[in-house]
Amino acid sequence: MKVVVIGGGAAGLGAAGAAQGASPDAEIVVYTEFEDVAYSPCGIPFVHGKDIDSFDRLFLATKEQYVQSGIDVHYETTVEAIDPTAKTITVAGEGVVSYDKLIIATGWLYGDPGVPGSDLGGLYRVKDIRRAMEWDKVLDSTKSAVIVESGFIAMEMTTALRHRDIDVTLVDPGAWPMSDVADPEIVEPVRKSWEDLGVDMQWGNKVTAFRGADTLTHVETDQGDVQADLAIIGTHKVPNNPLAKAAGIKLGSTGGIIVNARMETSIVDIYAAGDCAEIPHGVSNVPLQGLSGSHAYAQGKTAGVSAGGGDREYRPVYVPWGMLAGEWMLGGVSFGETTATALGLNFVTGIANGITRARYYPGVKPITVKLLADPESRRLIGAQMVGGEGIKERADFLSMMTRTGITVDEIANMENVYSPAIGALNEPIAVAAQNLLKEL
Amino acid sequence: MKVVVIGGGAAGLGAAGAAQGASPDAEIVVYTEFEDVAYSPCGIPFVHGKDIDSFDRLFLATKEQYVQSGIDVHYETTVEAIDPTAKTITVAGEGVVSYDKLIIATGWLYGDPGVPGSDLGGLYRVKDIRRAMEWDKVLDSTKSAVIVESGFIAMEMTTALRHRDIDVTLVDPGAWPMSDVADPEIVEPVRKSWEDLGVDMQWGNKVTAFRGADTLTHVETDQGDVQADLAIIGTHKVPNNPLAKAAGIKLGSTGGIIVNARMETSIVDIYAAGDCAEIPHGVSNVPLQGLSGSHAYAQGKTAGVSAGGGDREYRPVYVPWGMLAGEWMLGGVSFGETTATALGLNFVTGIANGITRARYYPGVKPITVKLLADPESRRLIGAQMVGGEGIKERADFLSMMTRTGITVDEIANMENVYSPAIGALNEPIAVAAQNLLKEL
Repeated sequence: MKVVVIGGGAAGLGAAGAAQGASPDAEIVVYTEFEDVAYSPCGIPFVHGKDIDSFDRLFLATKEQYVQSGIDVHYETTVEAIDPTAKTITVAGEGVVSYDKLIIATGWLYGDPGVPGSDLGGLYRVKDIRRAMEWDKVLDSTKSAVIVESGFIAMEMTTALRHRDIDVTLVDPGAWPMSDVADPEIVEPVRKSWEDLGVDMQWGNKVTAFRGADTLTHVETDQGDVQADLAIIGTHKVPNNPLAKAAGIKLGSTGGIIVNARMETSIVDIYAAGDCAEIPHGVSNVPLQGLSGSHAYAQGKTAGVSAGGGDREYRPVYVPWGMLAGEWMLGGVSFGETTATALGLNFVTGIANGITRARYYPGVKPITVKLLADPESRRLIGAQMVGGEGIKERADFLSMMTRTGITVDEIANMENVYSPAIGALNEPIAVAAQNLLKEL
Repeated sequence: MKVVVIGGGAAGLGAAGAAQGASPDAEIVVYTEFEDVAYSPCGIPFVHGKDIDSFDRLFLATKEQYVQSGIDVHYETTVEAIDPTAKTITVAGEGVVSYDKLIIATGWLYGDPGVPGSDLGGLYRVKDIRRAMEWDKVLDSTKSAVIVESGFIAMEMTTALRHRDIDVTLVDPGAWPMSDVADPEIVEPVRKSWEDLGVDMQWGNKVTAFRGADTLTHVETDQGDVQADLAIIGTHKVPNNPLAKAAGIKLGSTGGIIVNARMETSIVDIYAAGDCAEIPHGVSNVPLQGLSGSHAYAQGKTAGVSAGGGDREYRPVYVPWGMLAGEWMLGGVSFGETTATALGLNFVTGIANGITRARYYPGVKPITVKLLADPESRRLIGAQMVGGEGIKERADFLSMMTRTGITVDEIANMENVYSPAIGALNEPIAVAAQNLLKEL
């Protein structure tokens, strides 16, 4: 059996490894347009910000390791077409290549800003490590930058550019950072820490044009011009699906490939995984696309196991998320009040301000937890947090609570570790749940 | 209504506050033998170790704050007897005092080492803050110390004394540290870090006598004499129940007061909470006593609400625990293989070695997660972890998984946050569950 994977990111390589695990004798071929696989693109903003000393640190495995593992990776190779009837693909420079199982993992692109000058020099779309290495040299002589919309990577770049002492103006149509997943009182400390870092934040503003001769000199916005020799494009991720669309594979409302729990597409023997696919949200049933690298990797593994003849299912997602934002950690599960209201969901909230260790213990950090619950079922529908430590672990916990439908009553009565150096007497998740119960 | 509380620790004060909340007009009186209430005894080892600069930092509230809140605390006052028929107590210096509801929160004492010389000078039982202030001066001139058994506080004292450059010999009858809750491969890094700190560890050894004229000069053990001018008594907690016993209140197999879910004892209008009570373990149904301060506080609140006429229940415990141990954080839920085997439970295990952030991100720490599950129900019965961060939050999570019976299958498929600065691509809890599934 021959399994062909298009895409060398987290989903593609997860799929290749899992297909090999499920079907050890299968021939596994991966096509990628890029020079590299098996590095961590999520680390790029932190190298730009000098938190990590070298791009080399981001590589997880060498090309030799893939050769040795028996996965045949074709680098800098473009797949031009899929023929589902013949079960072949057309590869630039290789011609027609057959497959028994095909896994599409073509990922995402930044959404087109849709304004004049979007193809000008000086517009940086953070994504590929080789381009990042080139851009990092550009940053050495960059004086001022505009961040166009506050997506996850763009938010990390905001902090990184300030660490490089570059003047930063953030232009976002939202009323506050991360407005689709977090509420204003939760992101307020982050906003404040960017203010303290000297970022000029223009919320409720929109870029209308990128201007310059060959390369950017200024950005026009609804609220006036901003001088900048660099723009970081932080628009929403859109699925990279021209190939799938041309092959007649069914796409959904997000433009992502529709898949079932086995990651099968609408066409037999073709699977999809990662940011090119869409997955239903566990709470709202609304299809989502553009999730995290861990989602892409898990979807890839499911697609690989399925393609390899094994049995694995991927389920609706509850989307725990988290990040370093300014001087804070920010995170949560599912969505905030804005999205819940837009979806017409009925909900009550509970919030708690707590601490991460005993009040007197060195390194203690503040933490705020906000929970949203359905008043009928008393189950969580979302959570948000801001704090100094323990955000990722709590987001994982609350994601599992949301998925399994553990009630707020149960969460309010949770047991928690108390030990001065590592945890406070009162767990803020429990207190937020207790406060939410008072509203029920 | 008059609510009388005997004991000014976490359970007693939790009870007093909760009784006042449930019954705002009630008269609330607290009796304590000590000079203080509302401080954190758990912080004492860290002040001794100079991690925290002053004992004053451990106080949470002033005596005035209690006066203002309307809770009448009688300090340095001994309750001598309880008369359940007359509904009175006898108080030294006050005479007979009546109650409508009585809450017993008399806490714990260190178990008697049961060897000659146990009343000698130089034996330090870490517990009360005033005594700790006195002992801290003694530590300035202490050259060598023996730690007698490796209870939680004694383990923290081991590290603290090394921070003070005192020679430390640890004598414990167990084969490795924390042998009743953790397995050897989990505590091995802790053992190693104590070795690196220069602690002389004598596992499988037992103190047979404390020797000296007035004050300690050496300790006799099964394996020979140890010179020491100080001994830290780290024996198991025993419930402090002479009062309850004399009053005819029913005690259980641990010596703890038997309570129902409302924290009612065998005698009407008498409640108990904290380390003087015993609570069934959720997995084994075996009664437990000597839990953490957060358990005592939660039990106190339940007793207080019940006594105040409100409705609240305390449930069997799954006992998430955690601590700083040597250079590591150690934690878990329920128990390890030793106790599971002793209880005759059938189980399988899964272990994973992971990391807490992206491999390349500054501050990344190793973490090992070990899970025990029942092969029939596929539910967790215990967990243990050692690592550098995120131990408390994961113990809370795994405790909730154990309590609610979420299966290992579900845990193996959990979603997790991936963001380089705060979490790794693979969550070690999920990987441990995946490894456990391979054994099923």
